[in-house]
Amino acid sequence: MPQRTLRGGVDLGGTKIQAVVVDDDQHVLGQARRPTPAVGGPADVVAAIDEALREAADQASVDVASLSGIGIGAPGAIDEATGSLARAGNLPGWRDPYPLAGDLTGRLGPPVMLGNDVQVATDAEFTLGAAKEFQSLLGVFWGTGVGGGIVLEGRPWLGRGAAGEIGHVVVRHHGLPCPCGRHGCMEAYAGRRAMEQRAREAQDGGEKTHLFKIMEEKGRERLTSGVWAKAVERDDDVAVRLIDDAVEALGVAVASACNILDVDAVIIGGGMGVRFGEPYARRIEEAMMPHLFHDDLPPVIRVAELGDLGGALGAALLVAVPVA
Amino acid sequence: MPQRTLRGGVDLGGTKIQAVVVDDDQHVLGQARRPTPAVGGPADVVAAIDEALREAADQASVDVASLSGIGIGAPGAIDEATGSLARAGNLPGWRDPYPLAGDLTGRLGPPVMLGNDVQVATDAEFTLGAAKEFQSLLGVFWGTGVGGGIVLEGRPWLGRGAAGEIGHVVVRHHGLPCPCGRHGCMEAYAGRRAMEQRAREAQDGGEKTHLFKIMEEKGRERLTSGVWAKAVERDDDVAVRLIDDAVEALGVAVASACNILDVDAVIIGGGMGVRFGEPYARRIEEAMMPHLFHDDLPPVIRVAELGDLGGALGAALLVAVPVA
Repeated sequence: MPQRTLRGGVDLGGTKIQAVVVDDDQHVLGQARRPTPAVGGPADVVAAIDEALREAADQASVDVASLSGIGIGAPGAIDEATGSLARAGNLPGWRDPYPLAGDLTGRLGPPVMLGNDVQVATDAEFTLGAAKEFQSLLGVFWGTGVGGGIVLEGRPWLGRGAAGEIGHVVVRHHGLPCPCGRHGCMEAYAGRRAMEQRAREAQDGGEKTHLFKIMEEKGRERLTSGVWAKAVERDDDVAVRLIDDAVEALGVAVASACNILDVDAVIIGGGMGVRFGEPYARRIEEAMMPHLFHDDLPPVIRVAELGDLGGALGAALLVAVPVA
Repeated sequence: MPQRTLRGGVDLGGTKIQAVVVDDDQHVLGQARRPTPAVGGPADVVAAIDEALREAADQASVDVASLSGIGIGAPGAIDEATGSLARAGNLPGWRDPYPLAGDLTGRLGPPVMLGNDVQVATDAEFTLGAAKEFQSLLGVFWGTGVGGGIVLEGRPWLGRGAAGEIGHVVVRHHGLPCPCGRHGCMEAYAGRRAMEQRAREAQDGGEKTHLFKIMEEKGRERLTSGVWAKAVERDDDVAVRLIDDAVEALGVAVASACNILDVDAVIIGGGMGVRFGEPYARRIEEAMMPHLFHDDLPPVIRVAELGDLGGALGAALLVAVPVA
């Protein structure tokens, strides 16, 4: 009987660290989550990853050292050759290259592979989720920012390592300032961080909104996707207007991307994308149509299926499955 | 001694039909040009292609029937399986599918392959021209409209047959009307047809411009790239402003496309692109920079090298070169 091989996957996000342990069929045998340290530096983040992986391995009744490998989906600039990560803006004190893969292997044992967080989540939807039957797709992760991943003819398209930046497709030349420092990017209208900024400005300008009250009621410190959803449910004018703007911007940018790529499908994921779900996928599709050059053959628009675990499952896919 | 095999290539444009006859090393042994019939239908266009090919073959001292194949770069919707062309908006009376390949083979003898006009011009720049040393590129053909072609890792990327529509990437949501019927497309600002419309409106609105006088002096009926170049040279306010707008729109759309694709290089061709040349390639590059997400590694921006023959040379590449 062949030895059972398990793999680890970690989604290293700005808010949380999600770890899974999966078998060769991608079944999740263990999972654990830790908040991403808000202060400190790479060593603190690595300690939290270590904890989450050990807990997931315990749940799967396996020694973490016996995993055949660990994949990590990370933001920032990845150097595959050295296994280092740099300029991870959402992680505390993580500007300079830090040997993430080597450090974790030293602590846990198994080899560690790094991949772009959004790309691995796209690969997961392609391999296991909403895009299983397609060959070419664009993944759009609508959350704090708006990230994108591309699969063409079954293979990830990374360009020179920086492809898929759907959030920074321009939707309005000389438009709103984007958190990235540029102007008119889609993310300036659709990213949760930028939307919160606009909501605050609206309130400061005298407009009435329940957004921040709902935030407090929910015990949150930011306008999470749940807060936005609740405010829209209550017909809050500011929330409705800003969500409408976000949907329009998503439609324009995704249509522009499809005019370039002509992919089979677009998968909408991310905290906002999954929270707002199917009805909003249809709204984004509607917003795309006026800008789609070949509108007689639009791509299929779907909501991501793997939810919160997509990133970690995609990260586990970075580790090769041994041939039986 | 192996028999010498020659191939034919035709660039089927809205204004002119350019034919070449090339050898296995892509050397042009014969070339001929015909104006594209302005009225009539597919049969008239086919007759003009036939004439141009026979003349190019004569020049190459070869019987057109002995060509190993003929490639045609065409606008509109190509059905490779049936060799038919439909919805070629710039060709007279060409809406319904017409068996272009079969008709030409019947008249001339050799097998005929069809390809998208802009894609074959991109392939030509990739194989023979300005992008020879790159693996991934975006071709931007700035002319009457603005077409685009994509090569990724050495292979054309066509999507589901409609990729590369760089002219219809949105640069301004709710922006100017585009000749395509949509709003805010890059082509609404940068396409020669749209620019002429804007110039006419400016003149009708009382603005002074020499554009139409220069057009008459040159004996033209439209604002050709030569007319625009002359007007800019004379510091014509309207011409300078509209060309500035075009450069800005090109910069924004190409930057958006590069944020998605992250290609090695962008090749600027087309009537306007080649006429305005290197200084304007640098201006387009400058206009891209504020919108390029990874501006530490911009793509190389070059002017197309193959000029007027690029399309026809690329079309000839559709015909397989026999292995020696």
